[in-house]
Amino acid sequence: MKNYAFGVDIGGTTVKLGLFDRDGNVLEKWEIPTVKENRGAGILPDVAASILAVMEGKRIEKNEVEGVGVGVPGPIDEDGVVHRAVNLGWGVFSIPKVLSGYLDMPVRAANDANAAAYGEMWQGGGKGCSNLVAVTLGTGVGGGIIVNGEILTGSTGAGGEIGHIHMEDGETEACGCGNKGCLEQYVSATGVVRLAARRLARDAAPSLLRGQELTAKAVFDGVKAGDPLAVEVARQFGEYLGKGLAMVAAVVNPDVFVIGGGVSKAGEILFDYIRPGYEKYAFHGCRDARFALATLGNDAGIFGAAGLILNQGERADADDQ
Amino acid sequence: MKNYAFGVDIGGTTVKLGLFDRDGNVLEKWEIPTVKENRGAGILPDVAASILAVMEGKRIEKNEVEGVGVGVPGPIDEDGVVHRAVNLGWGVFSIPKVLSGYLDMPVRAANDANAAAYGEMWQGGGKGCSNLVAVTLGTGVGGGIIVNGEILTGSTGAGGEIGHIHMEDGETEACGCGNKGCLEQYVSATGVVRLAARRLARDAAPSLLRGQELTAKAVFDGVKAGDPLAVEVARQFGEYLGKGLAMVAAVVNPDVFVIGGGVSKAGEILFDYIRPGYEKYAFHGCRDARFALATLGNDAGIFGAAGLILNQGERADADDQ
Repeated sequence: MKNYAFGVDIGGTTVKLGLFDRDGNVLEKWEIPTVKENRGAGILPDVAASILAVMEGKRIEKNEVEGVGVGVPGPIDEDGVVHRAVNLGWGVFSIPKVLSGYLDMPVRAANDANAAAYGEMWQGGGKGCSNLVAVTLGTGVGGGIIVNGEILTGSTGAGGEIGHIHMEDGETEACGCGNKGCLEQYVSATGVVRLAARRLARDAAPSLLRGQELTAKAVFDGVKAGDPLAVEVARQFGEYLGKGLAMVAAVVNPDVFVIGGGVSKAGEILFDYIRPGYEKYAFHGCRDARFALATLGNDAGIFGAAGLILNQGERADADDQ
Repeated sequence: MKNYAFGVDIGGTTVKLGLFDRDGNVLEKWEIPTVKENRGAGILPDVAASILAVMEGKRIEKNEVEGVGVGVPGPIDEDGVVHRAVNLGWGVFSIPKVLSGYLDMPVRAANDANAAAYGEMWQGGGKGCSNLVAVTLGTGVGGGIIVNGEILTGSTGAGGEIGHIHMEDGETEACGCGNKGCLEQYVSATGVVRLAARRLARDAAPSLLRGQELTAKAVFDGVKAGDPLAVEVARQFGEYLGKGLAMVAAVVNPDVFVIGGGVSKAGEILFDYIRPGYEKYAFHGCRDARFALATLGNDAGIFGAAGLILNQGERADADDQ
């Protein structure tokens, strides 16, 4: 049982890194740029060099470090092999083999949304739960599912892609994935704006939302100010998201849904709109699932990546006894 | 590593039992009645006595038996505690503790649909896969989900209840669960009959289905005979089931869907109707999932129960090395 672990969250612009102690405290956080030249060949060497420099600066020896967890924006299989991460230029290779080749320490890798879900389970809004669905309502809708304390990866790394559950037969616009009527088209930040724009165009009903830039924040600010049209949009949002999460619950039956991403900055008021839809459509055995806000924000990825390494250590220790 | 295991599948009328060898061969199969008097208090003692009698008859010693797996028609948690099995009159208690109290052998318990899914993964239509969704199209729709070779139980034992995914907002009749518009209402044997009856009532179009008892079998026999109205019903069935399984795939991303139950006796022709709906609505990363027929029929439960015990043994052995 070693004292430290590193969590790494590789994004399209920057790589976030964190040094953690065994209890899940982040001791130091920093960022380096993501250099995508040469099909991203420099990214893992840069990560390794940055970790080694921090260890040297803090006089941490390798035998004090449990290992390094890495979150990556792309499908990652059970063995940590990435199957194309288009934002980084990466093809197919084993992240644990390459990075531990540079570092000579154990490495685990996971999809970034799944790592974030793991982080929220370990130290965030889902702390204490082992069956969790994390939903990130940002530009798109990300999902991460934890079953019995482990990430649900799926057979091709597409487990937890709940933004692409089909919700609406009549949709005419296409989702980024190519299908029409995906959950993401109604409940992402962009989706909330679409719902609001459609509602505003329908008639001339007065609303605080008219004459200002339409954003998900403006919609939920309108809700808080009691604007009836904003409330109507929030109800539609909640009906879609509640229904979608009820479908997810009939499959994986979680303890808790942890809601994060830009839209979640509206706060717990979101749940007033999601819960009625959820309870209306949920199978009775799943109806008691809790809703919680994500608490780790942009750090969820580094927390989860570090947790993957530290908790694996604990499991191995438990097995040894 | 011991040579034998018993698989037990407790139903509302009979208990099925099987003696298995380590390779997954069933050496002997038999049944005893399910005695439900006294809130089913006699069921586990009867199972224990029956197993001990077979062991004595075959001169099998306890040290040759890995243990006993049990499938139960009700929610079972990770520790094998049943949370009310209404068909048996059971309340809340630990099946492993009670049954191993009678048998002095290791016991594992699982929900019967989940045990059947495990059986199909171990020795049936999903053999060789570790991420699988089993769908039983009977009077209702049962579901069992295997993730990384383990049953997905969920937080309250409602994991895999895919028959109760909401599919249709306009439905006026209620599902057995109390909701309206559940997948089960369209694709169970009863659901197929409902779809056919609705179609027949719509107009006077000629059909082989008129003037005979409406069953799911009659519908698919009509499909095989080229009856256009039966084909129309099969397409509707396939659109619902394909769409529902696409939703499931966006959550758990399985290698394979294994389709069993009475409706599946129609054979592989079912897939001609399910696949178009599936491919239309599935997220691209999940689109290559396979469809296979269940092959173990009513024995899937005893296979799965025995497999839970035998494979747990293998895992423990692997961890020891």
